[in-house]
Amino acid sequence: MNHLVVRSVVRGFLVNGARGGRYFSTATAVTTSGVLKPMDVWTEFRSRNGASFGVFYWRRMMSTAAETAVAENEKTEKSVGKQAEKEVESVKASDGAVVSSYWGISRPKILREDGTEWPWNCFMPWETYQSNTSIDLSKHHVPKTFLDKVAYRTVKLLRIPTDIFFQRRYGCRAMMLETVAAVPGMVGGMLLHLSSLRKLQQSGGWIKALLEEAENERMHLMTMVELVQPRWYERLLVLAVQGVFFNAYFVLYLLSPKLAHRITGYLEEEAIHSYTEYLKDIKDGKIENVPAPAIAIDYWRLPKDATLEDVITVIRADEAHHRDVNHFASDIHFQGKELREAPAPLGYH
Amino acid sequence: MNHLVVRSVVRGFLVNGARGGRYFSTATAVTTSGVLKPMDVWTEFRSRNGASFGVFYWRRMMSTAAETAVAENEKTEKSVGKQAEKEVESVKASDGAVVSSYWGISRPKILREDGTEWPWNCFMPWETYQSNTSIDLSKHHVPKTFLDKVAYRTVKLLRIPTDIFFQRRYGCRAMMLETVAAVPGMVGGMLLHLSSLRKLQQSGGWIKALLEEAENERMHLMTMVELVQPRWYERLLVLAVQGVFFNAYFVLYLLSPKLAHRITGYLEEEAIHSYTEYLKDIKDGKIENVPAPAIAIDYWRLPKDATLEDVITVIRADEAHHRDVNHFASDIHFQGKELREAPAPLGYH
Repeated sequence: MNHLVVRSVVRGFLVNGARGGRYFSTATAVTTSGVLKPMDVWTEFRSRNGASFGVFYWRRMMSTAAETAVAENEKTEKSVGKQAEKEVESVKASDGAVVSSYWGISRPKILREDGTEWPWNCFMPWETYQSNTSIDLSKHHVPKTFLDKVAYRTVKLLRIPTDIFFQRRYGCRAMMLETVAAVPGMVGGMLLHLSSLRKLQQSGGWIKALLEEAENERMHLMTMVELVQPRWYERLLVLAVQGVFFNAYFVLYLLSPKLAHRITGYLEEEAIHSYTEYLKDIKDGKIENVPAPAIAIDYWRLPKDATLEDVITVIRADEAHHRDVNHFASDIHFQGKELREAPAPLGYH
Repeated sequence: MNHLVVRSVVRGFLVNGARGGRYFSTATAVTTSGVLKPMDVWTEFRSRNGASFGVFYWRRMMSTAAETAVAENEKTEKSVGKQAEKEVESVKASDGAVVSSYWGISRPKILREDGTEWPWNCFMPWETYQSNTSIDLSKHHVPKTFLDKVAYRTVKLLRIPTDIFFQRRYGCRAMMLETVAAVPGMVGGMLLHLSSLRKLQQSGGWIKALLEEAENERMHLMTMVELVQPRWYERLLVLAVQGVFFNAYFVLYLLSPKLAHRITGYLEEEAIHSYTEYLKDIKDGKIENVPAPAIAIDYWRLPKDATLEDVITVIRADEAHHRDVNHFASDIHFQGKELREAPAPLGYH
């Protein structure tokens, strides 16, 4: 579908003096399907912690002309009976394999202001954000009901073999546990999606909230993968743990979404604790405070000279937010309500 | 996480003369956690088919002040040991149940320009779009390989009982088949997500592309539910079909994503045909051309006097796009590549 075409006049609204990554598109950005109209860009400056910085927010709009051009170039006859298919100009996949662009599927080049290409496919500039690192890290749900206690004790029990295996290897711990942390949001989101379909009911925005959580955890993983090189037996362990945890959490969410969300909330509380220990080791010099990987700088809009410490700080803030969302979701169930009866958090990660 | 706070100066960029829905926020929009800063709004006009109209695109940015206020009001002591939890001002769920806002989870009011509240939770104004109804509806993948033929014949076979059951009851057909159509994108997206996690690899943007397809199909369903009242046995049939189809497609995607995407592509081709027949019956007066439901007018940015015919036209255009995405995905597999090696479509539905 086409979004609206944006006039380049909006670019005149740009405010200068920004540091940090700047993104823009040019009228010369070309795909195999045609020329893109300029993308809209707006800038908003924000002072925070005494430092001024600018961030561009923009959204790429696909030109109707591009899609129409594809359709015209490759249109078969209007009657459904005709079965002609033309192999037109093709899109080269990343390693040179040729994939037909008959279907008109392509991703236009997205450029930063310095002319370099936006290097990421799994998130776009408008999906980046700045973390709220002032979020309260010490919030804790005091176990009240029987299910709360089951959840709390399960998580505390699971911590034991985890601590034995990882010791103080927090980088490795973070990477491997993010492969687990990204599962609950996806399972919950999918089961809510199926529920909405078969009951023919609205979702209250929770499907998106949970899928967003899963994607955010996956971005934590993609970041940690840049920093930590897993060994072969650690990769095997990841496979095994996913096989068990995915199925277990799937069944759990079917039987008791209240318990599932509570467990996830407690898991996030433990994650906050682990990341705090990670930061302590970095500050004490036990873990080298390396430069932040590029993916993290772009995703969290960190300064170009950000370090591992900054990355772990924003990841920890994300986990605090996930803790809040999951405990809140469990509270809703605890009230005997369904999630869709209380509006989901919006625009969080 | 907080997105950037937006200055209301952007509102000065508004261009007048728009028809259609206008959305804005006011500084008086209040949540239990504090006052929202004004949201950014921009307008872009677009001439299409000789008619000018304006559409506002805006994105709500959460104020850091709001989140900080929550944290300050409800902060426990910094030490992890303390286990106090305060029940502060609570959020009323839709039917009056009280849910704790200790976790700081709330959805601020989002207002249209006419002062009425944005009524939807499952999509926000910046997630609405205008469909490209000039998309080529007649594209068809000619079955070439053995798997292609299996896919094509499976879909054609499944059409037989479907046609017998629904006859020309296209409204009912659309509603019930959308409960099926929303499954492949979610299953595919989830399996790609799990794959990215356990292989510690990037996704190429395909997770989002497929989840977006699933959400779009769900919005088709939410629209049809406003128009068609299913009978009890039709609801039972929906449950049964989901139980079978979800599991079957899950296993299929694990065994052969190439075949799974090809089948989905052919299912979408059949959907286009069915919606064309639906439109024919509307134009011939056999089905009443009722006013479009509000959810459709907001989601697809249709004019206020849009009718069922307009809704089915944009839904059909969406299906054409899903056809393209799925056939393209299958083509990538057919080349012996993984999806992440060819960038996924961006910003589509």
